[in-house]
Amino acid sequence: MPKTDSSRSRSFQGSSHRARFSRARFRADLVRGVALLGLAAFTASVPYAAPALADEGMWTMDNLPLKQMKQRYGFTPSAEWIQRVTQASARLALGCSASFVSADGLVMTNHHCANTCLSELSPKGQDWFQDGFAATKQTAEPRCPAMELDRLDRISDVTDQVGRALGGKSGAAYSAAEKAVQADIEKNCVGGDATHWRCDVVTLYHGGRTALYRYKRYQDVRLVFAPDQNIAFLGGDPDNFNFPRYDIDMTFLRAYEDGKPAKVTYLPFDPKGPSEGELVFTSGNPGSTSRDEPVAQLQFLRDVELPAIIGYYSTLDGVLWQYSRGGEERKQEAEAIQFGVENSLKVFNGWQQTLADPATLDGKRAAEAGLKQWIDADPKRRASFGDPWAKLAPAVAAERHLYARYSMIEGDRAALGFTGKTISYARLLVRGAAERQKPDAQRLPAFHEAALPALEATLGSTAPVHPALDETELALSLTRLRQALGMTDPLVRQVLGKESPEELAHRVVTGSRLGDAAFRLQLWKGGAQAIAASDDPAVVLARTIEPTARKLRDEWDDQVVSVQRQASEAIARARFARDGLNTYPDATFTQRLSFGTVKGWDENGTPVAPFTTFAGLYEHATNFDPYKLTQAWLDAKPHLDLNTRLDFATTNDIIGGNSGSPVIDAKGHAVGLIFDGNIHSIGGDFTYDAARNRSVAVDSAAIIESLRVVYKNQSLADELVRGHL
Amino acid sequence: MPKTDSSRSRSFQGSSHRARFSRARFRADLVRGVALLGLAAFTASVPYAAPALADEGMWTMDNLPLKQMKQRYGFTPSAEWIQRVTQASARLALGCSASFVSADGLVMTNHHCANTCLSELSPKGQDWFQDGFAATKQTAEPRCPAMELDRLDRISDVTDQVGRALGGKSGAAYSAAEKAVQADIEKNCVGGDATHWRCDVVTLYHGGRTALYRYKRYQDVRLVFAPDQNIAFLGGDPDNFNFPRYDIDMTFLRAYEDGKPAKVTYLPFDPKGPSEGELVFTSGNPGSTSRDEPVAQLQFLRDVELPAIIGYYSTLDGVLWQYSRGGEERKQEAEAIQFGVENSLKVFNGWQQTLADPATLDGKRAAEAGLKQWIDADPKRRASFGDPWAKLAPAVAAERHLYARYSMIEGDRAALGFTGKTISYARLLVRGAAERQKPDAQRLPAFHEAALPALEATLGSTAPVHPALDETELALSLTRLRQALGMTDPLVRQVLGKESPEELAHRVVTGSRLGDAAFRLQLWKGGAQAIAASDDPAVVLARTIEPTARKLRDEWDDQVVSVQRQASEAIARARFARDGLNTYPDATFTQRLSFGTVKGWDENGTPVAPFTTFAGLYEHATNFDPYKLTQAWLDAKPHLDLNTRLDFATTNDIIGGNSGSPVIDAKGHAVGLIFDGNIHSIGGDFTYDAARNRSVAVDSAAIIESLRVVYKNQSLADELVRGHL
Repeated sequence: MPKTDSSRSRSFQGSSHRARFSRARFRADLVRGVALLGLAAFTASVPYAAPALADEGMWTMDNLPLKQMKQRYGFTPSAEWIQRVTQASARLALGCSASFVSADGLVMTNHHCANTCLSELSPKGQDWFQDGFAATKQTAEPRCPAMELDRLDRISDVTDQVGRALGGKSGAAYSAAEKAVQADIEKNCVGGDATHWRCDVVTLYHGGRTALYRYKRYQDVRLVFAPDQNIAFLGGDPDNFNFPRYDIDMTFLRAYEDGKPAKVTYLPFDPKGPSEGELVFTSGNPGSTSRDEPVAQLQFLRDVELPAIIGYYSTLDGVLWQYSRGGEERKQEAEAIQFGVENSLKVFNGWQQTLADPATLDGKRAAEAGLKQWIDADPKRRASFGDPWAKLAPAVAAERHLYARYSMIEGDRAALGFTGKTISYARLLVRGAAERQKPDAQRLPAFHEAALPALEATLGSTAPVHPALDETELALSLTRLRQALGMTDPLVRQVLGKESPEELAHRVVTGSRLGDAAFRLQLWKGGAQAIAASDDPAVVLARTIEPTARKLRDEWDDQVVSVQRQASEAIARARFARDGLNTYPDATFTQRLSFGTVKGWDENGTPVAPFTTFAGLYEHATNFDPYKLTQAWLDAKPHLDLNTRLDFATTNDIIGGNSGSPVIDAKGHAVGLIFDGNIHSIGGDFTYDAARNRSVAVDSAAIIESLRVVYKNQSLADELVRGHL
Repeated sequence: MPKTDSSRSRSFQGSSHRARFSRARFRADLVRGVALLGLAAFTASVPYAAPALADEGMWTMDNLPLKQMKQRYGFTPSAEWIQRVTQASARLALGCSASFVSADGLVMTNHHCANTCLSELSPKGQDWFQDGFAATKQTAEPRCPAMELDRLDRISDVTDQVGRALGGKSGAAYSAAEKAVQADIEKNCVGGDATHWRCDVVTLYHGGRTALYRYKRYQDVRLVFAPDQNIAFLGGDPDNFNFPRYDIDMTFLRAYEDGKPAKVTYLPFDPKGPSEGELVFTSGNPGSTSRDEPVAQLQFLRDVELPAIIGYYSTLDGVLWQYSRGGEERKQEAEAIQFGVENSLKVFNGWQQTLADPATLDGKRAAEAGLKQWIDADPKRRASFGDPWAKLAPAVAAERHLYARYSMIEGDRAALGFTGKTISYARLLVRGAAERQKPDAQRLPAFHEAALPALEATLGSTAPVHPALDETELALSLTRLRQALGMTDPLVRQVLGKESPEELAHRVVTGSRLGDAAFRLQLWKGGAQAIAASDDPAVVLARTIEPTARKLRDEWDDQVVSVQRQASEAIARARFARDGLNTYPDATFTQRLSFGTVKGWDENGTPVAPFTTFAGLYEHATNFDPYKLTQAWLDAKPHLDLNTRLDFATTNDIIGGNSGSPVIDAKGHAVGLIFDGNIHSIGGDFTYDAARNRSVAVDSAAIIESLRVVYKNQSLADELVRGHL
């Protein structure tokens, strides 16, 4: 995928570690307008006139680079092609992409996108995440707890309206107006039916445009098939983000409506796979990129945020590694978090390396200087756009000043000083109770009426809380809190009082009942009164933290986020005014199309071929983890066509969140399944390196061959080939 | 102190984690010449004519800033003062400073400099490191295993001779010539009596001068008194590198000669302590600074080396944290390493922050540009100095290319891919056997005849190897090795073979007999034949690694170190030619004098007072670790003078390695004991910030008051006040 946290859902303090690192801009996509326009109108109405930029670009479905595709590849997608690709694509609310691959709601995505479902569904004594799963028949497909699939229904441009609503405001007034207009829009868009529809207001081009995305929601998603973890993630962390690769990182789900398989538009599945040099597309939901982020913010990321977060995650990685050595049970408890942490570390380290390369920021600095010169050359432009870079300076200063306390006590998604499920649930309950007492428009975005069903699903999750692991996480985070802020910090003093981090963590986790979903939902329903009356130690701790955390959030929003947003907006407007709308916006976990070809690359003088095969798989495997094949794979070897292509690399421009995206050919057929990028793709957050950035996919041929020969799952293979049940 | 690894001793693969991070320049102080000059001649013969530079400077004893001291403080040290301070100062070979404080060999240093001795001497069931120790009488003082104290005897300038020996050579020829001349010099200097003398060739000013330092060795060092760890390190990691501070980080040792207390020159101990604003000096052995290091090398440190090492140490920190949660015994096993790791992380993170500040490198870049301009302005200078910065470019490129494999497989001091005592002993034995077969001049510096006694002491150490901890360290390092180099790396394939890191680590550590000192010494004495015949699994693994490791060391030395050294040398010569010898060299773990005053600072608008008191100690303490006082301290409270000064801050310019340095007043009396710097002192590696960089010391008043009232050790207090037994 790049398997970074790609979720842009605005849930507060999710308990998953995959959602533990996010950046200010993750919170920038707030509601900006009201006018709703159909998707079709959009694709037709936006003229395209861009220069060719290699295969770079994560294009919105309403602004495809038609001319560029034609020039480079002689291909122009028909309206029907665009419509089918759009409607057969979907995203998993937790942060992945997916596609429909049969008329009966069959969904193709990655194994690593379904691991929570696999773990949660595993009956006592079984481990479906590790060993795989196959439903015996359609009617025996089990439902994934708390899994949601969203299919894009329409996009609306709301740029002008939002501009009017926010015009002339700044600081706290700007934040408040934004919250209000967002709540209003989402409410109208959902139209009272939040069960079937979901609406997200998305800021594109760092404020240059604002769009409202409406999704059809599928909340009944069931498990059809998953292979074993060995083949899904062969090579584990060492091979992650590397290529050549030998993984079949697939899982099949099925969307249901009214208890029956949903009838959907789908991508016909072509079991032949693509050929070298073939034009291919990906349709998915890249989570976040920073290609157009101002240099001052990237410097902050490089110099302050990344070192802090890499240090924190590295320590957590060590803790989880040692925790896992405490026995098989502990290993199972920790493995999902550990995967997320290791995966994130690869990404963060890749970012660090990319940003440390002087060429990365030098190029961006030159581009900023050019745009500033263009503005300054004309008094009218100066009046219209001002000097947005100068406006950023106080925001960066505030960011440096606030960052340590903000990231430890509040954070964009989770507070690094208070981690683990118990305290996260407690803080969600405490904040939620207070927010729900306010009118919708005055709430923090995470607590708008439209978002409440998802929060309730989180609170009602039947996924277990492992007390020893949870206590470990909390104790570590409290230790880091004390280390980062010092014993003289008033909140540190207040929280730790006479206790050590270990003692406090032990008392809170063992004394809390928040591991029980029913108890959580009861407190949620009890609202502010129940929260105030609770003597649950986690709730008591959360109440202690809350006033300081809220104050930090307000300061951060007013002094950092809103200032950055206004500056970025002015920069984006200036760029549009100079260049027109001939480019793609930074990724926003919304649907994007990329185009490219199946192609290897040159690694320091050594050519890397674009395909791997089953023969290579058996050479690459060893008899120890994470390179060990299951017995089923060893037994199947004589029966497999070893020339079958397994994984392939393409030039498509993707990023974390694209996990599970289909690879589509010019006919609109599915020929592969994205699951990773190579090591050079990590720098894609900041810049696209046409020579070396590659996405990595499972070949459709490998999917069919493994289903038929290794897993002997003819019914699923048949459904894929046939296109229906 | 700054408690960084400050050792410049050239022991190979020490088992202490405090010695696990070093940089290329640590290896640059090789022998350069032969002419021996007396110390006194030196102090007199070097004229001084520098501009005042605040209190900056770690001055060599033969080039003190007499004019500057006089201008700023109206003080000129007498020859007798210099002589006394020089001869009453010493260093612990493992990386700390110390001073003689009675005529009968009484040594004052830090508790954290003696923690290995305290742990190793603890009888079964006791923990002297944690609980402290007091000898009942002089004749009952126990000997510290493997502790060495060195007192500077004389300095010789060998610059010209070395220049002649190396002239015109480069690459491998340069490295070989350097090794040869170093071996020759050291042999002559020691004069066949390596038991009583130690000789180090030291490159000063990055090659601008080379000196030979001869030391009187004291290898019989005994333990006199240590307080409990609670008061020695109150506040632990959170308070480390912070001020206000409330620690009494002291230990007293005694040097013996021929079984009797050594008769020495000493600093009279003044129990009154210094006053605010008073002129004070420190005499100690700052380990390493990089103030004159070329910007290209600092960028490499910032962008490549620090991120890698911070990630590694953070992970190890997490592993040790979780390991320690496995019970009291495990906690004790890990605590020394954990202290070293946490302490190093504070330093590395401080470096990262300092180097991320654009002002740090911008200033150095401007200085380099100025010097280059000065060279280029004159054809004769161009002919003499060339363009050393251009010469550095290929070294930096080679460094980037080699770093991952070099740091994992070989490393300056220890290979990050193979850590833990067992494998470190094995590699020392394997390499030592091969090196000792060569003529002295062709050996790696660590294995010169003069260095062998120290290596044998290391191998003969009775400090226990804890198998579970050692296996943990090795398994982690093998995991990191595989992660950093990938499974396609030939050595990774060769080492891991069919095993996982866990399995290999388990087999090697549980199967090896290298935890037994007698077995190690037997293998050492058996030489190459014994090593070749050994089937000890750790020795077998070390033999597997050795050819690759040697190749990497040669490449690193030839392509990186020797090129950097030659470029740095040219830069230093140019600077001398332009400015004269009016400055101090970067720290080299050799004796330096700093001057300054007792003074607080302004922390973001809040003034920090220079002194803390016993009253503040009782306010700062809580009832949980690391802020907990022992019962003895709680009981003593009513009997202590609570106004007694405890710790103080000064403007003296120190760095890691200065731990244990005496604070000396203008009369030449000891008035304090350096044990740390404030958080701003960490950046002192690269630049001295006069406004905020502060050293942190224990007040002599606190030493006497605590000895008399809390520890009731009148005999030691009397010896200090009296100046003899």
